[in-house]
Amino acid sequence: MKKERGILFVLSGPSGVGKGTVNRSLRKQWDGLEFSISVTTRKPREGEEDGVDYFFKSRDEFEKMIEQNELLEHAEYVGNYYGTPLQYVEKTLADGKDVLLEIEVQGALQVRKLVPEGVFIFLAPPSLDELRNRIVGRGTETEELIDNRMKVAKEELEMMDHYDYVVENDEIQAACDRIKAISIAEHCKKDRIKQQYLRILEVK
Amino acid sequence: MKKERGILFVLSGPSGVGKGTVNRSLRKQWDGLEFSISVTTRKPREGEEDGVDYFFKSRDEFEKMIEQNELLEHAEYVGNYYGTPLQYVEKTLADGKDVLLEIEVQGALQVRKLVPEGVFIFLAPPSLDELRNRIVGRGTETEELIDNRMKVAKEELEMMDHYDYVVENDEIQAACDRIKAISIAEHCKKDRIKQQYLRILEVK
Repeated sequence: MKKERGILFVLSGPSGVGKGTVNRSLRKQWDGLEFSISVTTRKPREGEEDGVDYFFKSRDEFEKMIEQNELLEHAEYVGNYYGTPLQYVEKTLADGKDVLLEIEVQGALQVRKLVPEGVFIFLAPPSLDELRNRIVGRGTETEELIDNRMKVAKEELEMMDHYDYVVENDEIQAACDRIKAISIAEHCKKDRIKQQYLRILEVK
Repeated sequence: MKKERGILFVLSGPSGVGKGTVNRSLRKQWDGLEFSISVTTRKPREGEEDGVDYFFKSRDEFEKMIEQNELLEHAEYVGNYYGTPLQYVEKTLADGKDVLLEIEVQGALQVRKLVPEGVFIFLAPPSLDELRNRIVGRGTETEELIDNRMKVAKEELEMMDHYDYVVENDEIQAACDRIKAISIAEHCKKDRIKQQYLRILEVK
């Protein structure tokens, strides 16, 4: 009988929000997800290992991967390429295991088009509480500061529209726990279980 | 500023599946949910306390509650009334706390109509694995046994269509963990967070 396909989870969000930190912490404590390793043309930083933190490639090698459709998504960021190897993701999902990709917003939108059934998680700064405090709080903030914060919140709001979940990164462990919960809950979705029932009933 | 309203979770499923056991276990270990206490006309069993396990009422009192719209749902089951007091649920949700109701399928369908934004969890017997084993397993089952199991599975499949999630009760702790995960994940749903952003942005 055909194996149940795994779920693709995409963790993304504005740069600087702490995607990498949350991703690394989750990796250490949670074996319910397989973690994809990105390909990049940027130089390894101290302590980074090829095949562990990233697959380090030259620009030529990377561009060949693009040409040969070996990347699920890729983007150029501060002069370097970053991408997700398609083969690993495809093989792991087909094997029935869930995969988590940690990528920039730009890449997440590419994946959304290719894998609409994926589960997209927007990691957000703890802006909501901050915002609430500034607006309804003690009134000591300048008008300008509030306006600026409102503008950023509006931009975040627009970005998150492409996602299924929003996880506020108020605290790393809390953010990790929410992502774990989302991955468990997604497996309990009625439509997913229904498909499993239907498949088994049809087997007869 | 107006408080965020809590989420109404409904735990239901075929009778005998273990709703009560899972509900009691969850109550002991999880303070992320408030638990509604049902009203019933059946006599207290040994060890059951009024106001803890149930609110025990006479048939007259119960029927008065129905007349005065004091119940969110009610059903008659083996000659006794069972119902959910509306006031407690409404007050707790308005207070920003989540509520879990454990009710029969008949009652769940009533609540679905009144509170469509509630989160409905179908507790299912571990039938999927059982079914899978019987069908693709060692082939030692009689045709009749398999047919019967298929029929039950089809009925379950129809029932679960009214729900958002299906939690298989293969093991009590595993079922509790899934319900906890669902309650956490629901709070991270994009649409819910988006509403919070919008409310705060409008406050200004």
